[in-house]
Amino acid sequence: MYFYKNQFLSKNDIQLSPDDRGYYFGDGIYEVFRVYNGQIYEPQAHLQRLERTASEVRIALPYTASEIGDILTELVHKNKLVEGTVYLQITRGEAPRAHPFPAETEPVVLAYCSVVPRPVASIHKGIHAITLADIRWLRCDLKTLNLLPNVMAKQAALDHGVQEVVLHRDGIVTECSASNIMIIKDQVLYTHPANHLILHGITRAVVLKLALSLAITVQEETFTTEQLYQADEAFITGTTVEITPILQIDGKPIGAGAPGPLTQKLQSEFVHTFS
Amino acid sequence: MYFYKNQFLSKNDIQLSPDDRGYYFGDGIYEVFRVYNGQIYEPQAHLQRLERTASEVRIALPYTASEIGDILTELVHKNKLVEGTVYLQITRGEAPRAHPFPAETEPVVLAYCSVVPRPVASIHKGIHAITLADIRWLRCDLKTLNLLPNVMAKQAALDHGVQEVVLHRDGIVTECSASNIMIIKDQVLYTHPANHLILHGITRAVVLKLALSLAITVQEETFTTEQLYQADEAFITGTTVEITPILQIDGKPIGAGAPGPLTQKLQSEFVHTFS
Repeated sequence: MYFYKNQFLSKNDIQLSPDDRGYYFGDGIYEVFRVYNGQIYEPQAHLQRLERTASEVRIALPYTASEIGDILTELVHKNKLVEGTVYLQITRGEAPRAHPFPAETEPVVLAYCSVVPRPVASIHKGIHAITLADIRWLRCDLKTLNLLPNVMAKQAALDHGVQEVVLHRDGIVTECSASNIMIIKDQVLYTHPANHLILHGITRAVVLKLALSLAITVQEETFTTEQLYQADEAFITGTTVEITPILQIDGKPIGAGAPGPLTQKLQSEFVHTFS
Repeated sequence: MYFYKNQFLSKNDIQLSPDDRGYYFGDGIYEVFRVYNGQIYEPQAHLQRLERTASEVRIALPYTASEIGDILTELVHKNKLVEGTVYLQITRGEAPRAHPFPAETEPVVLAYCSVVPRPVASIHKGIHAITLADIRWLRCDLKTLNLLPNVMAKQAALDHGVQEVVLHRDGIVTECSASNIMIIKDQVLYTHPANHLILHGITRAVVLKLALSLAITVQEETFTTEQLYQADEAFITGTTVEITPILQIDGKPIGAGAPGPLTQKLQSEFVHTFS
């Protein structure tokens, strides 16, 4: 069961128009919500980010945040989803292909649920990553459908036999292909400031709060790939990856090459935020 | 009459899948071909660029360039198109949403014709433009469906009551929202080198050849917004705009504020390339 335009319907009944601006321009925005125990996790934070992105790219949301929340909740119930994700995207609408915003069109809403188990294996065992130049545009804070660079980066990781890429601009680490990154050095947690160069991750914000509650010093400061190599611990944060340790970067172990103590402490606390 | 997947069919019979990676990621490439007198203009140049983009984003074209050329020619005939454009896009294929390239999927080809008269009014009278920061990714040489920054830039122009934006990175002019830009200063033509920061326009290449044939000195060198303000002439080049003079930039006249003599010479020569 999908939600499309103004109704719930089966995937096979969806008739996308080739004039949907999502198709020609990637002219749309999205969110991926986590569902634990049949409940959407941090819905307000996601909906606020959606509103912010919509405002920045000037798509007038066809529903209030509260109405969208209700639609997604109903979608979760209709699909009897217990553990998984809700994907929501809103494009600028349908119109013959032309760059300018069309004068009369309604945004097209599409949403669906997926069963996605928590990736407990990688959360506990960690992942390996490589570094790669961040060649994306300068509004990475906006969650838009222009994701080709992220797709290419993710595929580069898999081609190198690792699970994720750590992106950097001239040696300054920004984030990963679909997650934020944090490091621990001398008991201090460092992560890139939430500016236009990274997505303002919901899980990132949750983890920073947890860190403070654990009396871990948090520095929202940039760090270099060199500092990443020399870190005591490193991990990525994201809606589906939660807190996943990075054990190796570019073939070199980070710290002891095993999930670090503060990473594990944060993981334990994180589980309490939804269970 | 459209071409979709492997057949010619009417637009209403197209059933796009929401799983088309063009829709979720803008994971696809495109070309816009000009048609004059029922003939596709510079088909080889467009097809070569398509092949290059496909190779760079690692989409395996489902047809040879020659086969694509034949399909588009047939499409033009079936639509009895005399003057207009052929839009072609190829996405990576259909698969449940996930960043990595799907293992088994076929690229989805979509093509259609539009009646588009030559914009003779703006070609002769010129346009006004504003400058804007170029915030796009660092592979602007690839003609992909990630066009949101271009859409936003074009709309910014319209909102300012002008027709185009001139993009710049830290004051270095790159190109426009959907066209290349050239200036003339002291009888020398300057345009940004064809590197990763601009689209390698087909019309750009045609105009550079025409300039050489007219014994105009061509410098494929960067220039600044300041140099643009001080230029004797300026114009944009593109598949549909051809050679369109810029008369004002940020409210200031360029040169005499009228189409310049070398611009007009190039325009006259350009018409001979298709008539």
